[in-house]
Amino acid sequence: MNLPEGFLLSGINCGIKKSGYDLGLIYAEDFATALGVFTTNANPAYSVTLAKKNINNPIKAVLVNSGNANCYSHELGLKDTEEIITKLAGEFGVKKKNILISSTGIIGKRLPKEKIIKNLPELIKKLDKKYKSFSKSILTTDTFEKVSFKKGSINKKSFTLLGFSKGAGMICPNMATMLGFILTDVSIPKNEFKKMVNEAVEESFNSITIDGCMSTNDTAFVLSSNKVVLDNEKEKKLFFEKLKDISLDLAKMIVKDGEGATKFVEIQIKGAKTKKEAKTAGMALANSNLIKCALYGANTNWGRIISALGQAGINVKENIKIRFTDLKKKNIKIAVDLDRGEFCGNFFTTDLTPEYIDINAEYS
Amino acid sequence: MNLPEGFLLSGINCGIKKSGYDLGLIYAEDFATALGVFTTNANPAYSVTLAKKNINNPIKAVLVNSGNANCYSHELGLKDTEEIITKLAGEFGVKKKNILISSTGIIGKRLPKEKIIKNLPELIKKLDKKYKSFSKSILTTDTFEKVSFKKGSINKKSFTLLGFSKGAGMICPNMATMLGFILTDVSIPKNEFKKMVNEAVEESFNSITIDGCMSTNDTAFVLSSNKVVLDNEKEKKLFFEKLKDISLDLAKMIVKDGEGATKFVEIQIKGAKTKKEAKTAGMALANSNLIKCALYGANTNWGRIISALGQAGINVKENIKIRFTDLKKKNIKIAVDLDRGEFCGNFFTTDLTPEYIDINAEYS
Repeated sequence: MNLPEGFLLSGINCGIKKSGYDLGLIYAEDFATALGVFTTNANPAYSVTLAKKNINNPIKAVLVNSGNANCYSHELGLKDTEEIITKLAGEFGVKKKNILISSTGIIGKRLPKEKIIKNLPELIKKLDKKYKSFSKSILTTDTFEKVSFKKGSINKKSFTLLGFSKGAGMICPNMATMLGFILTDVSIPKNEFKKMVNEAVEESFNSITIDGCMSTNDTAFVLSSNKVVLDNEKEKKLFFEKLKDISLDLAKMIVKDGEGATKFVEIQIKGAKTKKEAKTAGMALANSNLIKCALYGANTNWGRIISALGQAGINVKENIKIRFTDLKKKNIKIAVDLDRGEFCGNFFTTDLTPEYIDINAEYS
Repeated sequence: MNLPEGFLLSGINCGIKKSGYDLGLIYAEDFATALGVFTTNANPAYSVTLAKKNINNPIKAVLVNSGNANCYSHELGLKDTEEIITKLAGEFGVKKKNILISSTGIIGKRLPKEKIIKNLPELIKKLDKKYKSFSKSILTTDTFEKVSFKKGSINKKSFTLLGFSKGAGMICPNMATMLGFILTDVSIPKNEFKKMVNEAVEESFNSITIDGCMSTNDTAFVLSSNKVVLDNEKEKKLFFEKLKDISLDLAKMIVKDGEGATKFVEIQIKGAKTKKEAKTAGMALANSNLIKCALYGANTNWGRIISALGQAGINVKENIKIRFTDLKKKNIKIAVDLDRGEFCGNFFTTDLTPEYIDINAEYS
């Protein structure tokens, strides 16, 4: 796994968490083109508010902290955050508008800006071509690092994508306490790039759920250093495939690391009237506590599927086809053919377990 | 607790369940006026479909079975159900349109109509003024019978209300696997009566949630024998108060018996812009797995409240007021003042516990 050309990474402990890395940095040697998809939560983190504001500018660096959501903590929260990115921008001789930030952790505690600012020089000093310290710095209750690498070669051009994600709990439709960072070296016209990113995110990060809870912090960034110009349809298509692959990889890893999960569940919907109906159906099943308990118990209670579809407003006839793979296994597929149209979709979730409750009864 | 004048009740085991009562009957000596509120699940039980059709007719009897949801089981499911109520109507010399039916239990198994039909004479023979056998016959995973009695006296008139409910799991906004039956002896013009019932149900059965899962079978019936004519506003108002009281009593009992629950949680929302916003806020909190886990752990994680409100689209300022009573106790109140309007609402839920998962991992 190599870093795409034009980027450097680092990660350190700055004291937000008692131990473990809690501050990460993505640095673009030249300015990078950035795209972002953000939580639709009406009470977003200050980091999300600022990142949304800056996302359309050329980006020099992305600062990430874990251990504190930087959300709803203090009336000066937004100002604190601006101060931090202004300092970082100063270190690189750029404007604060060229910096992105994202945060994950507990809501309601003021971000310790002095600790962060004090440690910025150290964080910058450690920038290099390795990815391990960054991938660690973005985690909270995650039990493993989530990294994926893809490579494409076409017409004597070769490009790479390297991605990171962070998940574990509070993962839901329209993003999760999910952070995703994908770095690549391609150059594609921004409007086309944006369309690709939106579709890739929709089919990956927006098609997973752990517990139906949408966080205040969900963010996915795709950054490109524009080194490898892709200028014909075949080249772009190959990149798009790789972008979808890496997004799905990263999203699936989040589900596999779902809090307390003992099973990885793929829900395949087909025969829906529209793409939207397929998603409504898939997410209704993926978010049903009753279905998720049944999966934990390896219990093919398909009545709960009928009920959950009905709750989502989807009326089904007695000819609906529901197939389960062996529910005793760790990886499960549930295939539902609604038999009323041509659209389909795949969705990913976990079982609901006593362990999930124990984790979330304690976490504070 | 006395039966309101004009009604008889009974309950027996007819063999749907291996043991315990599973078939109940409400009988109106004269025809009763009936009002009903039904699940909005798009895949309703056959019993719901038939009851909806008959609800506006004069009602002679209500047949209730537990142990089988009579839903989504067989292409002849609706026909079977019609056959059962036709037989019951025959026993009373009325039409099938004068019969209501409701069911609760597992989805997808054909209702054993022969067992039910064979036992109708026995069920009718046992009709009397006692309520115990009926209150038992409607239960599934419930751990106690849910019965409430209210009495009103005004202008030398006195009226009574006797109510039953059934709940336990799959309780959610817009009704639950919740059955509710309220019998009364008042006579009130039907349009006014209907308005009262809708409001009483909205503030009780539709303001509770256990797990966010809406069943295919939810039904609340209010039946009146029309013996006590209430004809002035004060009299009607007193009845309305009692109707709201009994509905809330029955709804709260359902929450108290929530599957695996260790806590009874009242969520008080005030300062909302509209009644609807108060409900959106209250139910968003009441249905959040993360909040319910925190309550189980007696953990005042108010960040999860901010996040859940935001997920529901409610943006709050840093001046929101959140108060918890002692979370270590069995009865908890969470008061949230959104501080942006004049509307309020009370909502009821439970904590989410490992026990809930164990129950629902096994149940089939």
